[in-house]
Amino acid sequence: MTVGFEWIIDAFDADENALRDAEKLRAVFARVISDLGLKTIGEGVWHKFPGAGGVTGLLMLTESHLACHTYPEHRTATFNLYCCKTRPEWDWTKNLAETLGAKQVLIRKIERGAEKTSSDSLSEIRNLKSKIAGGAK
Amino acid sequence: MTVGFEWIIDAFDADENALRDAEKLRAVFARVISDLGLKTIGEGVWHKFPGAGGVTGLLMLTESHLACHTYPEHRTATFNLYCCKTRPEWDWTKNLAETLGAKQVLIRKIERGAEKTSSDSLSEIRNLKSKIAGGAK
Repeated sequence: MTVGFEWIIDAFDADENALRDAEKLRAVFARVISDLGLKTIGEGVWHKFPGAGGVTGLLMLTESHLACHTYPEHRTATFNLYCCKTRPEWDWTKNLAETLGAKQVLIRKIERGAEKTSSDSLSEIRNLKSKIAGGAK
Repeated sequence: MTVGFEWIIDAFDADENALRDAEKLRAVFARVISDLGLKTIGEGVWHKFPGAGGVTGLLMLTESHLACHTYPEHRTATFNLYCCKTRPEWDWTKNLAETLGAKQVLIRKIERGAEKTSSDSLSEIRNLKSKIAGGAK
């Protein structure tokens, strides 16, 4: 029984300063929530690591959760969007280019609770790999 | 550049009542944290959905985060453990059998920020699939 879908997003070659800016990351969350019609539970928790460090954000949704971690030193940001209901695909590549200056975005999608082996999830990842190869800028 | 590893755990055929009990889920988090020597940031956020609904928990770590969602109606619980540093493998199968009565546990491990294609992550998932096939009770 599938209980949800999780999108696992890794964004590369992004703008270092954007990755240290919690407001920019909050804005990404706000755009995801608005575009996909998600509902939040509480305000979320945010942490800016000191100095040149990155940002962590966790936000609970009635549909599950949204998380991000940024690594300015590697110009990398990672996101997880876990939804217990089907949602349309969000254009992470375009949106993270606009908001964080990301030049490449890898998107993997997995089913949660679906199978007692990972064969279905594997095929999904393979499909997405070819999709990303076409979509990368 | 690998920025972290994520363990994606789906537990099946668990005890319905345990999946509605936020204290039991907090105890799972506490055991993971203690066994792996992780450090928490803040108290975490927890939500019990009304009536027969499940529990969501999100906890920020200096090493990244820990999340869970339970679905008592499907006797399923899902966990994510994201660590930006290498950690030993935790025995999810044994621990979730003891704490939540889970009869089967699927563990997938993916690299975050590692590659601009998912080929490496795929091979890791394949390795884990064979490991799980041997480890399931």
